Amino acid sequence: MLITFEGIDGSGKSTQIDLLRDKLSKRGYRVEVFREPGGTDISELIRGMLLNPELEINPVTELLLFSAARSQLIAEKVTPLLNEDAIVILDRFYDSTTAYQGYGRESLPLVQIQQINEIASHSITPDITFYLKISLEESAKRTSHMEKDRMEKSSNSFYERVVLGFEEMAKTEKRIKTIDSRFSPIEIHRKILQELKAFLPL
Amino acid sequence: MLITFEGIDGSGKSTQIDLLRDKLSKRGYRVEVFREPGGTDISELIRGMLLNPELEINPVTELLLFSAARSQLIAEKVTPLLNEDAIVILDRFYDSTTAYQGYGRESLPLVQIQQINEIASHSITPDITFYLKISLEESAKRTSHMEKDRMEKSSNSFYERVVLGFEEMAKTEKRIKTIDSRFSPIEIHRKILQELKAFLPL
Repeated sequence: MLITFEGIDGSGKSTQIDLLRDKLSKRGYRVEVFREPGGTDISELIRGMLLNPELEINPVTELLLFSAARSQLIAEKVTPLLNEDAIVILDRFYDSTTAYQGYGRESLPLVQIQQINEIASHSITPDITFYLKISLEESAKRTSHMEKDRMEKSSNSFYERVVLGFEEMAKTEKRIKTIDSRFSPIEIHRKILQELKAFLPL
Repeated sequence: MLITFEGIDGSGKSTQIDLLRDKLSKRGYRVEVFREPGGTDISELIRGMLLNPELEINPVTELLLFSAARSQLIAEKVTPLLNEDAIVILDRFYDSTTAYQGYGRESLPLVQIQQINEIASHSITPDITFYLKISLEESAKRTSHMEKDRMEKSSNSFYERVVLGFEEMAKTEKRIKTIDSRFSPIEIHRKILQELKAFLPL
């Protein structure tokens, strides 16, 4: 089973992923977590380039680099794990590409972004996606103490388009479950488990 | 004007590019040469990954990395130069991707390779492409003294498919001019100038 978490920075993805990993492990499931971009030697090298504030990266190049990192992660780690019946949790997946590089950067028409997403993911689709919804103001508040990487140095209107992108996808894609990030971490965790009961005995 | 050179290793691309650059410069043209993958900070970083024999790279990842390097070169260097009426010569371009990653690696159906080529090249097409045709035996002879990088360590049947790919493209694409690499460098250079006279006073 493939579970993905989406949402802008500060939406609580890491906290929820930690809580879910613990819960599923305790229930005896084999769980593996990866963050995108990353998770393999090559993907981590690419991550270093993508987040380096010194590099000026063209939007199409950025899209292709995220996709290359994803392709390697899926081929080298995720696919073999799914074949062994492990549960794989991804901290971001191709919905982030659609939201950030598609809606946000407007690098390419969405139909081309989708073509590349399909190629880079080796046609794998998440069974369920949790979109942790948070306002831009709340996100800014929660991440104000962190140093900003290249991606995070983008403008406010960029982030408005990213959020719009996530909302649009959540409206049209049935696998995406929107969860309001204003609830407490434990309440959000419970809502996530509730949704997962349709897939797993929990 | 965009001129590209294609062909397997040992086909004499570098020699011909040097001769052509000198000739065009002497005629007063502004000429810039780039080799793929490479030509920008990001593209050279990607080149280092692609040629590193220590890294195991999935064929789709390889395709996306070549494409990312290309996208950055086109956006950062080639497009501005073409807008300033310079002549740009590329040592390999997307025909190599079709031949190596499409025909050779069989990483993806050719129609998807073409979609990615178009995206990565920002829809730029060469005005003319010289395919320097050489047999696998001759190529092996000419490159036997060199240390092999990751790409060059591929099997013989891989290279047979690559050559087949170049031949197929040369048959169907009018912009691709096939030149027999068994002629002497000076004779090949003359043939290239002959073809270019349709585009430039020489």
